[in-house]
Amino acid sequence: MSETNCGNAFHKQADEFDLIEWIRAQVGTQPRIPVGIGDDCAALSIPEGSLALLTTDMLVAGVHYKPEEVTPSQVGHKALARGLSDIAAMAGEALAVVVAVAAPRHLSMSYLQEIIRGMKGAADAWGVTLVGGDVTAGPLPLTLTVTTIGAGEKRSLILRSGARVGDMLMVTGELGGAMRGRHLSFTPRLKEARWLRDAASINAMIDISDGLAADAGHIAQESGVALELWQEAIPLSNDAVEIAKSSGKTALEHALNDGEDYELLFAAPAREAERLLERPDPPVKLTCIGEVVAGSGLWIRKRGGERRPLEPRGWVHRF
Amino acid sequence: MSETNCGNAFHKQADEFDLIEWIRAQVGTQPRIPVGIGDDCAALSIPEGSLALLTTDMLVAGVHYKPEEVTPSQVGHKALARGLSDIAAMAGEALAVVVAVAAPRHLSMSYLQEIIRGMKGAADAWGVTLVGGDVTAGPLPLTLTVTTIGAGEKRSLILRSGARVGDMLMVTGELGGAMRGRHLSFTPRLKEARWLRDAASINAMIDISDGLAADAGHIAQESGVALELWQEAIPLSNDAVEIAKSSGKTALEHALNDGEDYELLFAAPAREAERLLERPDPPVKLTCIGEVVAGSGLWIRKRGGERRPLEPRGWVHRF
Repeated sequence: MSETNCGNAFHKQADEFDLIEWIRAQVGTQPRIPVGIGDDCAALSIPEGSLALLTTDMLVAGVHYKPEEVTPSQVGHKALARGLSDIAAMAGEALAVVVAVAAPRHLSMSYLQEIIRGMKGAADAWGVTLVGGDVTAGPLPLTLTVTTIGAGEKRSLILRSGARVGDMLMVTGELGGAMRGRHLSFTPRLKEARWLRDAASINAMIDISDGLAADAGHIAQESGVALELWQEAIPLSNDAVEIAKSSGKTALEHALNDGEDYELLFAAPAREAERLLERPDPPVKLTCIGEVVAGSGLWIRKRGGERRPLEPRGWVHRF
Repeated sequence: MSETNCGNAFHKQADEFDLIEWIRAQVGTQPRIPVGIGDDCAALSIPEGSLALLTTDMLVAGVHYKPEEVTPSQVGHKALARGLSDIAAMAGEALAVVVAVAAPRHLSMSYLQEIIRGMKGAADAWGVTLVGGDVTAGPLPLTLTVTTIGAGEKRSLILRSGARVGDMLMVTGELGGAMRGRHLSFTPRLKEARWLRDAASINAMIDISDGLAADAGHIAQESGVALELWQEAIPLSNDAVEIAKSSGKTALEHALNDGEDYELLFAAPAREAERLLERPDPPVKLTCIGEVVAGSGLWIRKRGGERRPLEPRGWVHRF
């Protein structure tokens, strides 16, 4: 049980209901959310012709970030934005989130409030509403589970499994070195995904959370195809270049394996890819980084060289 | 990293993708779930005329249960059934769940598989599908966050806020002492809630998770009314009676404050309550335990006596 902190309005023994009431006051009511925080379930409308999209992600202090290196507001931003990135990967519209918070008992209420403020900032920026949650205190690191609900038009949902032989592979933005800071402040590519969907016919898409190699592997596996990456074409971020100066790995390795870029990787027929690259007004940098070929697995090719198999070395939780 | 356990099919270094693939094989595909496990989001249809219902709950080893006293299958059952109880409290239909698992690194894959089997058993019993999740390993107690999506008919959604002065208060089943075992094996009252909704006009409903007193308090607060409980009418479970023999508290106190009964507490106009009590075929024991009166707060009255204020003493997480 924590003492009252300066600057908050809690009683001496702040409890879960205080926190929930405080969150409820922050969020307010939304006309398009008939039932928000304060009932057994939230209730919301899914637009006609759409499927409900659902994704859940856990963020654990000390596992997904170093608590001493981040502000609580950044933690909130990251926890919320990861689910939005998953909705983006299906070219969906994000609607609402529910948040389960497990906090160590010594954690101050003001720290939790700052996390919620970070979430609220991200939620407001991308038009989603916090509609419910759960609060637990116990002997564990701060653990946030954010579940995001969105809507995806039935006829334009883009899956991981749609890549076809002959498709070009494309990526938004630049990759690698996100741990230098971008993993805390990234832009979930919601708008960009919908622009892509409207601008061209996209066959498959994923957001890059585990790392380009690992996530390309997911598309290959789900689509039953092989992917070939063009080594020189992969857009390296400045972060990847900087971090490579002292990491003992190349910038390319960082771009392939670091993960947490939250950019979009997608496959589109060659003529559609060309059409995208010719557009004068893309909302984000677009790069063609490879192609879909017959077979299975993930390959990388140096210009003029033989292709070699690429082992994903992204972040994997092991037991 | 755990060694291979007898009886599972994992590699020596089992990882999150192995677990996810194993879960996916257990779940199979469902015609009414267009996109299940294996993409960035799950996608599912919400029936026409319905709102999407959403609820999330965390279950933490050592906080919500004592790991040495329960089987992993019971943990899975409980984690899944709690969300179903929330959907029941709005008289909704449960459709699907997503599950985020954070496991300590030393936990065996077979223990995690048993948890999933427990969840799958509950999911099959109540017609819901496991459509996605997230797996994390780290230095923390086993932490499960289950988010449940359901559908509630717009015109028959029952909220906490609908209780009206003059309503009778009713409860399903019997209360108290759930920690003797019922909290691990309870029946979420999905069918019963829909039977109630079809059989009578219900104004407000909640499931009893925090305890009768605390949850009655939620209805009072959200509805802007006072609730008066009739002391002798509250149905005491055998568990409450048994546990009172050695706990130093009365069976009534257990029924009021223990929580985790996952029964339904609801308010209905007096004629509707009478109609329910006259039905020869209720799917669960129904008891009238009080009434809704003007004012605020929660009160309890002994037969022939004065009413006195009732302080909820249910389980509250404090920081």
